This record gives sequence, structure tokens and C-alpha cells, in this order.
Amino acid sequence: MSDFSQGLALVISAPSGAGKSTLVHRLLQAFPEFSFSVSCTTREPRPGEQEGREYHFLSRQRFQELMEQGYFAEWAEVHGNLYGTPLESVEAILGRGGHIVFDIDVQGARQLRSSLSSGVFVFILPPSLEELENRLHGRGSDPGGDIANRLEVARQEMREAPRFDYWIVNDYLDWAFDNLRCVYKAETCRSGRNQELYEQLVAV
Amino acid sequence: MSDFSQGLALVISAPSGAGKSTLVHRLLQAFPEFSFSVSCTTREPRPGEQEGREYHFLSRQRFQELMEQGYFAEWAEVHGNLYGTPLESVEAILGRGGHIVFDIDVQGARQLRSSLSSGVFVFILPPSLEELENRLHGRGSDPGGDIANRLEVARQEMREAPRFDYWIVNDYLDWAFDNLRCVYKAETCRSGRNQELYEQLVAV
Repeated sequence: MSDFSQGLALVISAPSGAGKSTLVHRLLQAFPEFSFSVSCTTREPRPGEQEGREYHFLSRQRFQELMEQGYFAEWAEVHGNLYGTPLESVEAILGRGGHIVFDIDVQGARQLRSSLSSGVFVFILPPSLEELENRLHGRGSDPGGDIANRLEVARQEMREAPRFDYWIVNDYLDWAFDNLRCVYKAETCRSGRNQELYEQLVAV
Repeated sequence: MSDFSQGLALVISAPSGAGKSTLVHRLLQAFPEFSFSVSCTTREPRPGEQEGREYHFLSRQRFQELMEQGYFAEWAEVHGNLYGTPLESVEAILGRGGHIVFDIDVQGARQLRSSLSSGVFVFILPPSLEELENRLHGRGSDPGGDIANRLEVARQEMREAPRFDYWIVNDYLDWAFDNLRCVYKAETCRSGRNQELYEQLVAV
């Protein structure tokens, strides 16, 4: 009964090549009720992007100041740009009962575990190490040596699996998606997340 | 990571009139993998019933001896006969990774909470107290005074709701069943229940 009236922070992570983003995309299509928290970034706005809609665009110096103040639930550097999720906007959404999905790498998930301890942590796994290797080859863009490197990174990332609440094997996409959908629906049925129901039926 | 390699004990309970048994019946039809634990009873065998198949048929004295020895995960007296679930047979099924459903009243669920603390406890709720009253009237077999009494019992039983892990409102049957199915599937995805996967993918 710890999360009374709190929304759900669903944190979805995976080793490289496990097929996480396709699953998250299907989840967002099936459940339009998910809220988005607008992230901060140091990269330049692209044509059509608006401050405060796609991102808050910050200077590197301002980003780093906020980072040092513990402003971000998680942050990462990707291709030389910094990206971060403001903790206060996440908390505001959860506080009014909204749900949020995080599609995030293993490092980011580790950061969220300390800043958002009430989150539900889901790890997407490949059906086997052989299949993971096949998938990395299938992407076709990497030379062999880089694949060996990425496979080793994925194995390291999989060692984080015990820290997650749920494991979903992405073998057949429809089956994996059904499990992900079930994790979400089941978590919304958690007794602690249904204060209104409690007041209406139980506390009378 | 507490239930490593353990099966799932899914304990489904509800106040009278919430429609629990229909939901449990659909769950068992959809998931034939559930194991059954053979219960003990003091009632006479009916034609066609076999000792050890439908029930273990015991004398009242023998049942009460076992009861005092803590042999039962839960027991109850119904229409003058005693019924009980042997804890050791439940533990044997869970120990080999099998899943069990308990379709049980609120009293029985309370007993199971102490004997099977690793169980997953699901409470089926009516959509409102008015609807619960309508359903009790709809059964047609009770005079009005009895309905008032059963409604009061149901209200008492609903006070137990916070002790359950999940709440499912049985408003539309298909929707309630989908939620129940999701609770079951999500719980099978719990990281702690997937030792084989762990050994195959992570502990390599």
C-alpha cells in the first residue's frame, strides 16, 4: 500500500539488440493514456521542434549546473549531446495519477532505480545469446569486430537483470507484447494504486 | 528474488456476490497448466467420487487431529462438513514449479496469507455497493432480510481488501477476466520466478 494515488512509472530497459523500442512503441499505441515528461537536451533544436514541446533546449553549462543539483531523474550523453529527464516533472505527473513509460538503456535504468524507487522495472531479454548475436549481425551496418564488442556489452548488461521486477523474453513479438501489456495492466490493478476505488467501496 | 524456481499460488477471493467463481472458471479454461491440490473433507463420497482423486475422505476425528497438527494451509466448515487443503501437497506442487489457483472465501484467504506468504492475493470487487445489492437480489432465492444480512457481510469482507495484492473490479466480465489473466501472466514474468532463464542468459 505504498503508492497510494500515485501513477505508474514503467521503466523498460534491455541489452542492445533485444528489441525494446518496438515493444515500447506498441505499448504507447495501445495505451494513449501514458503521459510524457519533456526531457532536457544540449543538442540544437531541429527544424519544427519547439522549446518545451519536444525538449527543453539548454546550454551545456546550464545542463551541467542542473545535473549537479540533482535535477535529473536520469541523464546520459549520446553522440556528444547531453539528455536528461527532470525529476520534478516526473513526480508531478505521477502525483496526479498519470502513468509514464521510460524507454531507456541499462545505465539510465540504474539511475532511475535510485531516483524513482516506486517505479516498475521491466527488462526485455533476447531468447538466447545465439539469437542476440544473429540479430546484431542482421542489422548489417557493423563490421564483425564491432558485433563481438556489442555482444560482450550486452552480456554485461544482462548481469543487471536480477535488479528488475519483470523479465520479458522477446522471442515472438506478439507474445512479448502481450506480456508487456499484462505487466502494465496488472500493475494498474495493484491495490495500492486504487485510492478512489478504496474510498468508494471499502472505506464506507 | 524471493521465489526462485517456485511456482505461483494465485489466491482469488471476493465478497459474496462479486462473481469470483465465474472468473476463476474462465482462468482455468484458458490456462490448463494450473495444477490442483486434492483437498480433504469429512463429507461422504458421492457416487463416482474416488478417494484421492476428488478428495481425501476423512473421519471428523482424523480431520481434527490433522487440523491441530497444522496440516492444512486453510480449512473451513461448510454445511456441517469440514474441508481442508493440505499444506504439504501445495508446497510439493509449488516446489516443482507448478502453479495453483485457490478459489476461496475471505476467511480462507486470511488463513492462506499466514501459511502461504509467497502467494499472490487477488480480490474481486463489485463495481459499487448498489450493484452488489442488485446482484444479491438477482439471485432470487433469498428473502429480503437475508439480502440485507449478506450485504452487511459483504461490506465487512470488503474491509479486508487492503490486505490483497491486486484488486479487480468485476463490472464487465470480459474486462475483469482480461485483468485477471494479466495478473497471472505478469506474475509469471516476475524476475524471481524464472530461474531457468536466469541460468541460460545471465549466469553464463
